[in-house]
Amino acid sequence: MDYSAALMTDMYEYTMLDATLKDGTANRKCVFEVFTRRLPEGRRYGVVAGTGRILDALEDLHLADEDLRFLSDRGIVSKETIAWLENFRFTGSIKGYREGEMFFPNSPILQFEGTFGECTLLETLVLSILNYDSAVASAASRMTSAAKNRPCMDMGGRRTNEWAAVAASRAAVVGGFQGTANLLAAKMYGLKAIGTAAHCFTLVHDSERDAFESQIAALGKNTTLLVDTYNIEEAVKTAVEVAGPELGGVRIDSGDLAALAQRVRNQLDALGATNTKITVTNDLDEYALAALQTAPVDSYGVGTMLVTGSGAPTCAMVYKLTEREGADGVMQPVMKKSKDKATVPGRKLAYRSYEYNLADCEHVVSGSEEKLAAYTPDPEWKNLLVDFVDHGEIDPQWRGHEAIMNAHDHHAKALAELPITAQSLMRGEPVIPTETTVL
Amino acid sequence: MDYSAALMTDMYEYTMLDATLKDGTANRKCVFEVFTRRLPEGRRYGVVAGTGRILDALEDLHLADEDLRFLSDRGIVSKETIAWLENFRFTGSIKGYREGEMFFPNSPILQFEGTFGECTLLETLVLSILNYDSAVASAASRMTSAAKNRPCMDMGGRRTNEWAAVAASRAAVVGGFQGTANLLAAKMYGLKAIGTAAHCFTLVHDSERDAFESQIAALGKNTTLLVDTYNIEEAVKTAVEVAGPELGGVRIDSGDLAALAQRVRNQLDALGATNTKITVTNDLDEYALAALQTAPVDSYGVGTMLVTGSGAPTCAMVYKLTEREGADGVMQPVMKKSKDKATVPGRKLAYRSYEYNLADCEHVVSGSEEKLAAYTPDPEWKNLLVDFVDHGEIDPQWRGHEAIMNAHDHHAKALAELPITAQSLMRGEPVIPTETTVL
Repeated sequence: MDYSAALMTDMYEYTMLDATLKDGTANRKCVFEVFTRRLPEGRRYGVVAGTGRILDALEDLHLADEDLRFLSDRGIVSKETIAWLENFRFTGSIKGYREGEMFFPNSPILQFEGTFGECTLLETLVLSILNYDSAVASAASRMTSAAKNRPCMDMGGRRTNEWAAVAASRAAVVGGFQGTANLLAAKMYGLKAIGTAAHCFTLVHDSERDAFESQIAALGKNTTLLVDTYNIEEAVKTAVEVAGPELGGVRIDSGDLAALAQRVRNQLDALGATNTKITVTNDLDEYALAALQTAPVDSYGVGTMLVTGSGAPTCAMVYKLTEREGADGVMQPVMKKSKDKATVPGRKLAYRSYEYNLADCEHVVSGSEEKLAAYTPDPEWKNLLVDFVDHGEIDPQWRGHEAIMNAHDHHAKALAELPITAQSLMRGEPVIPTETTVL
Repeated sequence: MDYSAALMTDMYEYTMLDATLKDGTANRKCVFEVFTRRLPEGRRYGVVAGTGRILDALEDLHLADEDLRFLSDRGIVSKETIAWLENFRFTGSIKGYREGEMFFPNSPILQFEGTFGECTLLETLVLSILNYDSAVASAASRMTSAAKNRPCMDMGGRRTNEWAAVAASRAAVVGGFQGTANLLAAKMYGLKAIGTAAHCFTLVHDSERDAFESQIAALGKNTTLLVDTYNIEEAVKTAVEVAGPELGGVRIDSGDLAALAQRVRNQLDALGATNTKITVTNDLDEYALAALQTAPVDSYGVGTMLVTGSGAPTCAMVYKLTEREGADGVMQPVMKKSKDKATVPGRKLAYRSYEYNLADCEHVVSGSEEKLAAYTPDPEWKNLLVDFVDHGEIDPQWRGHEAIMNAHDHHAKALAELPITAQSLMRGEPVIPTETTVL
């Protein structure tokens, strides 16, 4: 099926476009901002991910003929709006927090400046991408932090939607993972791919020895053999008999992983396979990883809990109008007053201040364009907003494989700059406060 | 980017294919089964969804040239395997539970029969689709049950991956929802689409009255106006002034929904707008819907908790080899013995028995093909397995819009046949037991 990312949206964006094109407000200049009012309960920080995918989607926003026909046949918009959509592309500007950056409640994660018409069409797509990808990256960050220097690999594709799986692999790498089992993600984003065999591989053979011999014949002695299909001790013995002490690794996917890893390590060492690595992969989350710190494990495969955000499968990010042109052509801060959902009017600047080289506060400064232009921040503060799109021109440095690896590195650096409490798995408040100043 | 669903998978499926093509076991006839060992904690039943999407994906399994190049360039498989993949299509058979059917621990939800090579490539894709779609349908079922006869609409797209959003809309309808805000889902699956305006629509205008007038000019008086941007009471007054008593509806998206709905109903009635409907949409889940039963609400928009499975964002479904041809050409039941993850050997039959027209037990019968052929179930039992694919031929009745609406109807019927405890929101055991018999 032919499709456009412009239909990955809620119907009301098109009905709003239609009404505002009719009354002229579709052309008003606007600022929309993405932020969250809260982190998932007990979390100390969040990690931004998905921005590069939003930039990819921006290029894919032209509506296909069959999409226009659908909008027209269903009577969702008028003929005049169809004509407007035929020429639609996003010509506004986008700035915000870079991928791999830490965010907190009220951080202005992304800021869109453009006409009401073009900005309103982006709402759902932008939120879908950021809410899911950041949920995964935030969980990945806690996991890689708990795993210390041992590599974590994404094996969660089977426990989330098939396209979400691809996005999750990418977001996991932003949050500190080293690679993924997912082949489409590996291909699309140039990620490291890993994986050797499942239990069915052992079972389809007449014996475990047959299976191991077959795997080594195909993948070499440096492969990882899965040793828990029948009896782990026997499997390890067979594995070393078949591969010799050059065996690359063994994987344990069930049982008490800490105890089993120790037994298998002892057995491997006794058999002379002292360089053979141990990978464990059974329903791990950040707490299990922390508990395995002293077990002789070399790497982790993480599945379900990674791709479902470890208890927080989505972020609560919203996309809100904070400033718009009035009938008089002047830009005005605006805010809704809905109970428990009020917004801070005006576009935002965002900085982080440091004390003894550790972050100690997020500073959000809000106001009209004019007031913000006259504002001078403390020269020691770090500016958190970078430019992604300038009047429709996408800066290529934020897309593709390099951008993901840069985000991975930035995440490590930014995490190291947070107070050490950030890496505690105990529930608590955001590790640094956010101070909002309205000019 | 060109892509094939065949790459939406874990790398080990290709390395296993490669090794088994080399040793010949790739051609062994196999039975793989999808089941779950447990429901999410406290849940009484699960609802199958996603099968139609699996059938859609089966048609999309031929690998594109660039996919083959990727597998080859990365050295994931050998040249001989690339040649095999060039001609790959699934020629096996699939049977299982229909969409909208209830499942329980150990229900054989899907059963794949084919060669090891072709079946093993499907594992991740099948599980991704079923695990996510069934998680959403299971949550949707509890929500629509709690909402009684009031329609529930999916508005959750922004809180899950952009493609997961499309799948969630579809799964929600299987689980009893009436429609969705997501346009791509509406287009792809012929679903009812809904939505009118967000807060930004009110804010972009110079006044709430301007916004309401604009919306009515574009969408007619039968539209739904969002009344909680500033002050609800004033907004309702303005809404009826602008639209008259023919106003279609109002939407409340914040605050104490039960109390507000009652106040707004009273106000609408006093203004003569007795037919104007009330929709509420603020962070609803099945518990909130149950609590709103006596409030004067006409329909619900459900978001975050729907698309994240209301606390259970994935099912724990697995895809396991249960029977395969041996070196002697004879089919043999097989099982892994991994701790806490052992499997029941042999392919399965599945029936549901009833007492006084209510389901009282799931009967799973396992054994070799031969033994099952000789088995006679109780004539009163209902056979739960239907045929989806016969030697590569997909039965069209299980795909597309009609199949979704049939699944929606089947879900309602099957839910009505469960003991009433199924509809309790209290945590408990699966509402009927599953008896497994190994012949």
